Amino acid sequence: MKRDLHIVDVTLRDGSHAVRHSFTEQQVRDVAKGLDQAGIEYFEVSHGDGLGGSSLQYGFSAVNELKLIEAASDVCSQAKAAVLLVPGIGTKDDLEDAVKAGAKMVRVATHVTEADVAKQHIELGRNLGLKTVGFLMMAHMAPPEKIVEQAKLFESYGAEIVYVTDSAGALLPHEVTERVSALKENLSCEIGFHAHNNLSLATANTMAAVEAGATYIDGSLRCLGAGSGNAQTEVLTAVFDRLGYKTGVDLYPIMDVANDVVAKLMPRPQEVTKASLIMGYSGVYSSFLLFAQEAAKKFNVDERDILVELGKMQAVGGQEDLITEVARELANQQLTV
Amino acid sequence: MKRDLHIVDVTLRDGSHAVRHSFTEQQVRDVAKGLDQAGIEYFEVSHGDGLGGSSLQYGFSAVNELKLIEAASDVCSQAKAAVLLVPGIGTKDDLEDAVKAGAKMVRVATHVTEADVAKQHIELGRNLGLKTVGFLMMAHMAPPEKIVEQAKLFESYGAEIVYVTDSAGALLPHEVTERVSALKENLSCEIGFHAHNNLSLATANTMAAVEAGATYIDGSLRCLGAGSGNAQTEVLTAVFDRLGYKTGVDLYPIMDVANDVVAKLMPRPQEVTKASLIMGYSGVYSSFLLFAQEAAKKFNVDERDILVELGKMQAVGGQEDLITEVARELANQQLTV
Repeated sequence: MKRDLHIVDVTLRDGSHAVRHSFTEQQVRDVAKGLDQAGIEYFEVSHGDGLGGSSLQYGFSAVNELKLIEAASDVCSQAKAAVLLVPGIGTKDDLEDAVKAGAKMVRVATHVTEADVAKQHIELGRNLGLKTVGFLMMAHMAPPEKIVEQAKLFESYGAEIVYVTDSAGALLPHEVTERVSALKENLSCEIGFHAHNNLSLATANTMAAVEAGATYIDGSLRCLGAGSGNAQTEVLTAVFDRLGYKTGVDLYPIMDVANDVVAKLMPRPQEVTKASLIMGYSGVYSSFLLFAQEAAKKFNVDERDILVELGKMQAVGGQEDLITEVARELANQQLTV
Repeated sequence: MKRDLHIVDVTLRDGSHAVRHSFTEQQVRDVAKGLDQAGIEYFEVSHGDGLGGSSLQYGFSAVNELKLIEAASDVCSQAKAAVLLVPGIGTKDDLEDAVKAGAKMVRVATHVTEADVAKQHIELGRNLGLKTVGFLMMAHMAPPEKIVEQAKLFESYGAEIVYVTDSAGALLPHEVTERVSALKENLSCEIGFHAHNNLSLATANTMAAVEAGATYIDGSLRCLGAGSGNAQTEVLTAVFDRLGYKTGVDLYPIMDVANDVVAKLMPRPQEVTKASLIMGYSGVYSSFLLFAQEAAKKFNVDERDILVELGKMQAVGGQEDLITEVARELANQQLTV
């Protein structure tokens, strides 16, 4: 069928964070089968941090992701498996193995200002015959003109779709509009949008992206993803149906797999909690949270003040050392006030 | 302080549905105290269906709502208790009792096309010196011009604020904009908006309402309310702060009462479930759900088809008899296809 919009389901990848990378082959088969029957075209499946993520640093997967990709691909009649690849975590070998296991799409993800590290991986994706996507993560940290510059790099390497990725759930709808519109005006490839729900705006931000020209949008069933989760696949299906878009996804079957399969495997429902809200509000990496909580205790300051300060400094992953410094500085300020 | 926006917290009224009207005096004191300290100006407290709602039909309250209003009022230094009054459920006597217990605001609620039944109650509210509000429920069921007509009735009776109330969580942002803008153009009183999150759009719809001129907006802590819950008070606080509005509510204290008090008394987290999503999608009363499930079993049809059909018919509360008819009709259609 002709689709106006492609809903890519990320339950089996972003949701991997929420279940601490514990997905079993049976769970993956059940979810993939449901997605396939509902008419989903592409769905991600891999470790939460992408291919090769299973490690001491990012958490070990209970089951090798290649087995999960195979299990998912085996049960699908039309839906295709996608994998996430973060250069530096996953390798070109990992991608070749994923293709042997059944992957048909690769999404190569970099920090919003570091698209240049993705050149070889995007080229490999195209050479392997995959639908090849570039993912600009933490997109709230760069203004539209920077995002255009970086997206053009992705496009020049061969990416067929470039995503604005709101990793921290920090964007407001008008900020999504600015970013997606800028890409739409300056690129010829298709544009995608990946939301997180930390400010309860995942659905609204996705609507803003589509109005601005995005044609690929991500969702997860029952919202199962990192932080407060993503836009909710079955909700996107309902809302875009109400708005008159053809997504090719059938509402009742997609609701059923969310309700009958995913809701039952979730360790806890997704909510906007104190921790996830402050991440969206401050725009920091989720990996900062535990460090901030420890530093807050040590220096007797509010962890939220630390995170807000780090957000202002536009701290990025790898700068966890900053957290202690910031906490010490805040404690000193408290003493002198 | 000068507020651009008034966030009215409805946890202790709309949340009453979600806890099956089991709020205790201690719980109410803890929540009210937290709201007061965070700078909330008005908060609702009463049975979920408003004053007088404690009954066989709507569910009995564990504790008399007058005691709850008293308990809440007792602990507040600046925040004021509001009550909901649905004519036909609550009476003028109930309102007088609520005022004795400490209520300072009344919100008189009718179906979106039945504002005329609220005349006496709104007049009484004003005579009792209350901040007096008119609530147009199920606002998705009427076009903007009808809503203007009904809101003008409220205004003519003396309402100081008129609310567009999205009881079924069925409105999309542009539909909120149309309705609130129409009121803003045609009324002189202030405009309010009450959201439900059935389509994951409660925050976005509230933003649309504010952009269109609403100055009173409702939220509940941790989203605790009927269906999928409301806009989330602490999220509204964060988002409108990011947007530059003065709400008079402090972010960390409001997050704390959500996290430390409300999250702990919830029987289950609020999610967009199969049941709540189909309510928002079809735009029907939550009271139809159980009847539809029973009828679906009896006639071997999908409960969602029944609800969608009822939504198209614009069925209203009290028309539960229709449900069996619709289910029978759908079953007949299945046989003949």
